[in-house]
Amino acid sequence: MPTLYHSPNSRSSRVIAQLMLMGKLDEVDVVVVDVQRHDGSGGPDPRNPHPEGKVPYLVTDQGQGIRESAAIMMYLDELFGQLLSPAIGAPDRGAYLSWMAYSGGVLDPVLVAAFSGLEHPALAGAYRGMSEVCTALEIALSEGDFLLGASLSVADILLASPFQWAPHLMPDSAIIKSWVERVGRRLDGEAIGAFEAQALSTLNALEDA
Amino acid sequence: MPTLYHSPNSRSSRVIAQLMLMGKLDEVDVVVVDVQRHDGSGGPDPRNPHPEGKVPYLVTDQGQGIRESAAIMMYLDELFGQLLSPAIGAPDRGAYLSWMAYSGGVLDPVLVAAFSGLEHPALAGAYRGMSEVCTALEIALSEGDFLLGASLSVADILLASPFQWAPHLMPDSAIIKSWVERVGRRLDGEAIGAFEAQALSTLNALEDA
Ligand SMILES: N[C@@H](CCC(=O)N[C@@H](CS)C(=O)NCC(=O)O)C(=O)O
Ligand SMILES: N[C@@H](CCC(=O)N[C@@H](CS)C(=O)NCC(=O)O)C(=O)O
Repeated sequence: MPTLYHSPNSRSSRVIAQLMLMGKLDEVDVVVVDVQRHDGSGGPDPRNPHPEGKVPYLVTDQGQGIRESAAIMMYLDELFGQLLSPAIGAPDRGAYLSWMAYSGGVLDPVLVAAFSGLEHPALAGAYRGMSEVCTALEIALSEGDFLLGASLSVADILLASPFQWAPHLMPDSAIIKSWVERVGRRLDGEAIGAFEAQALSTLNALEDA
Repeated sequence: MPTLYHSPNSRSSRVIAQLMLMGKLDEVDVVVVDVQRHDGSGGPDPRNPHPEGKVPYLVTDQGQGIRESAAIMMYLDELFGQLLSPAIGAPDRGAYLSWMAYSGGVLDPVLVAAFSGLEHPALAGAYRGMSEVCTALEIALSEGDFLLGASLSVADILLASPFQWAPHLMPDSAIIKSWVERVGRRLDGEAIGAFEAQALSTLNALEDA
């Protein structure tokens, strides 16, 4: 069974959401770990094998470590039969790969900069900003309910997640807002909330022990 | 035929190197475009359909635009029969996806910051720095000649490329240096050089016209 290192209400929560939607959460061993939080709480957890103490981190049955949400989500989707992504050779495959790479390669740096009020020509040159992110999402979403058109894919779960967890970063765009809601409705918010509450109390119990 | 928008001696050059290695350069329509360069020369090219004027950009036979080097390189590798990557379900698949996501999601922001002398706690928190990049590469390369072990993959072409093009960013690590050389020896440096010289003169002729 692959092992997922997860910390509640973090970037690994989107992997939990994906596994729940696929009905495969019980086929992954989820280990709840602590991480350093933005508010200064928490800290790296010695039980987390991620080389930099981050989550998510996945260790496969072959013992390989996978880092980066996009890679972990693609891997798990492939492992469980590509329920949520276009197969190799399918017409949307290119758009799917593009969004998965865009997530860590553009959206994340733009959000990290926006979140911390950091403005610098090198970052703007390399990643542009929220306005370009909005445009990119709006163009894709003007053609369908989800990033790849009619059906939800792993790309929607990944790219909508920052706006679900940090609503103050949500762009002032009706198209994007309704997409984030639409993705949220497809996920089982109640079950995710219960899972996260349980994970949090596991974590607190570990820390008190 | 897919169309690749390419600018000589840029992040799209690694896609050219990949296509040459696969023997598939003539199965892709390469359009040479200008881009804004770090030294202030060049500028966005109206012939480039990338939404932000960047390269590489690929337009598939289905008319889908793919951005981000990692996505384009994965797509082209898949299109031409996965000559340079593990198939879905193969033992190294997880490591492959991890390195491809790491490239845009960690290595690129770390290099952008290093290149411009930008240090900021938000960037260090999100991406760490060159020292962690070195460690990650060294651990992988201590087990084999290439990132996935014995055989060269698209991940090597992608991740070695910044050090090939900007040798001053090369970490002071014998393991990493010899890997970058090893990858370079597998690529046809002479043919790439000739192609880039031709691309540059095409570009100059277009600009003079
Ligand atoms: N690009 C990575 C980012 C991972 C990441 O930064 N995760 C945060 C949790 S939201 C973390 O582990 N922070 C703790 C730390 O950086 O020490 C991904 O999406 O997997
Ligand atoms: N993460 C992107 C980066 C693309 C990128 O920034 N390319 C540079 C060329 S080295 C570019 O087009 N710069 C022109 C610009 O930003 O206007 C990728 O690897 O595809």
